[in-house]
Amino acid sequence: MLRDCRFGDGVIVHSFTNLYGCEVGDESRIGPFVEIQDDVSVGARCKVQSHTFICSGVVIEDGVFIGHGVNFVNDKRPRATRSDGVLQAPGDWERLDVRVGAGATIGSAATILGGVTIGAGAMIGAGAVVTHDVPAETTVTGNPAVPLPAGEAVEPGRRVDPAT
Amino acid sequence: MLRDCRFGDGVIVHSFTNLYGCEVGDESRIGPFVEIQDDVSVGARCKVQSHTFICSGVVIEDGVFIGHGVNFVNDKRPRATRSDGVLQAPGDWERLDVRVGAGATIGSAATILGGVTIGAGAMIGAGAVVTHDVPAETTVTGNPAVPLPAGEAVEPGRRVDPAT
Amino acid sequence: MLRDCRFGDGVIVHSFTNLYGCEVGDESRIGPFVEIQDDVSVGARCKVQSHTFICSGVVIEDGVFIGHGVNFVNDKRPRATRSDGVLQAPGDWERLDVRVGAGATIGSAATILGGVTIGAGAMIGAGAVVTHDVPAETTVTGNPAVPLPAGEAVEPGRRVDPAT
Repeated sequence: MLRDCRFGDGVIVHSFTNLYGCEVGDESRIGPFVEIQDDVSVGARCKVQSHTFICSGVVIEDGVFIGHGVNFVNDKRPRATRSDGVLQAPGDWERLDVRVGAGATIGSAATILGGVTIGAGAMIGAGAVVTHDVPAETTVTGNPAVPLPAGEAVEPGRRVDPAT
Repeated sequence: MLRDCRFGDGVIVHSFTNLYGCEVGDESRIGPFVEIQDDVSVGARCKVQSHTFICSGVVIEDGVFIGHGVNFVNDKRPRATRSDGVLQAPGDWERLDVRVGAGATIGSAATILGGVTIGAGAMIGAGAVVTHDVPAETTVTGNPAVPLPAGEAVEPGRRVDPAT
Repeated sequence: MLRDCRFGDGVIVHSFTNLYGCEVGDESRIGPFVEIQDDVSVGARCKVQSHTFICSGVVIEDGVFIGHGVNFVNDKRPRATRSDGVLQAPGDWERLDVRVGAGATIGSAATILGGVTIGAGAMIGAGAVVTHDVPAETTVTGNPAVPLPAGEAVEPGRRVDPAT
């Protein structure tokens, strides 16, 4: 299902995807079972792997790798209904936008909370839950995600527990 | 694929879904890439977002928000085969049921273990792994999920490490 | 979408799947919304549940249970592009293979990092992030996954924090 999307040159979108109202730059690739909502911008030469969900308000710069099963979030306290019991509609919550800097990597199964900025070249470990901004060229892992100590061998998914 | 489901009035089910033998109440919405197994009850005015899996034995009361990529579990020690090497079939394991109370929120990418009860209005942080019951109106985050300290700013996905 | 797969006798593959260049043994079952890449071998009498992604280089022996929303990883520092800005293609990264021993269980929403070996009969807790080898018949949980202490009641998804 592709609706109202703007694609650059050479974009590849696999089967079983649900994209609407988004923009995808030149040569980027979108895997199967991916949903990208409206008001999302994916840059050029990005890879968005299978089973990933990108919500409204996310900007992904050029050359970003997004692994499999990644989830972006754009609200802090989601609820199904308003306090009067009526189903919520857009406008009933504050949208918290996310930016992912050029050349960054988001490992598979990572979760990116609303309002977060991920710096250029940063690396988010597989399975990490990112609750705060990540500086450029920094690797974070764990739930919640914390930076790897300097000098630590960089290995997405491996969390060096700060308590040990 | 919709088979043997009972839908209330005004239910919306997106494409690429696999629902069978379940019940969904009035005005609830089911996103793409969702599977809901038989013997599941989803209440009225719930939102079940994309990529979520709800297994047999889960009861979701009215007005519940279930984020993207949420997984429910209903067995404690799943195995592919019985001890004699034959593939397991229903009845070969003990099913552990789950209840989610009215108005609760389950954040994206959360995992809910079998046998757990989540109280009304509770909030499960994004990426949390819920291994124990969650009281009503309580926020939990982390892996395993633990309650946020009283007075702590509530932010799904942020875990306040009890050791710090 | 099934392309160039070799299936044993009695294999069941659900709708909404993307399998290519893989091998699946007798009586194994593949759930909906599953992607299995080329150069993957799934043994006989395995269950691969919905929303799971299995990447190239994974060998799964007989009788393995793989839950819902499981992600395998096969590269340590994935990037979208090479240093000269061109989109990466196979051969531009080192593939780290994974083996899952006979009769093992991988709980729902677990993430298995590249290069890891999971021993026969091991049990990976729901939501665990496995960054190191897991010995046979051992249960691990948490992010990063650590073994449960001896004598501890085995419960996938419950992590006994070593610091408490």
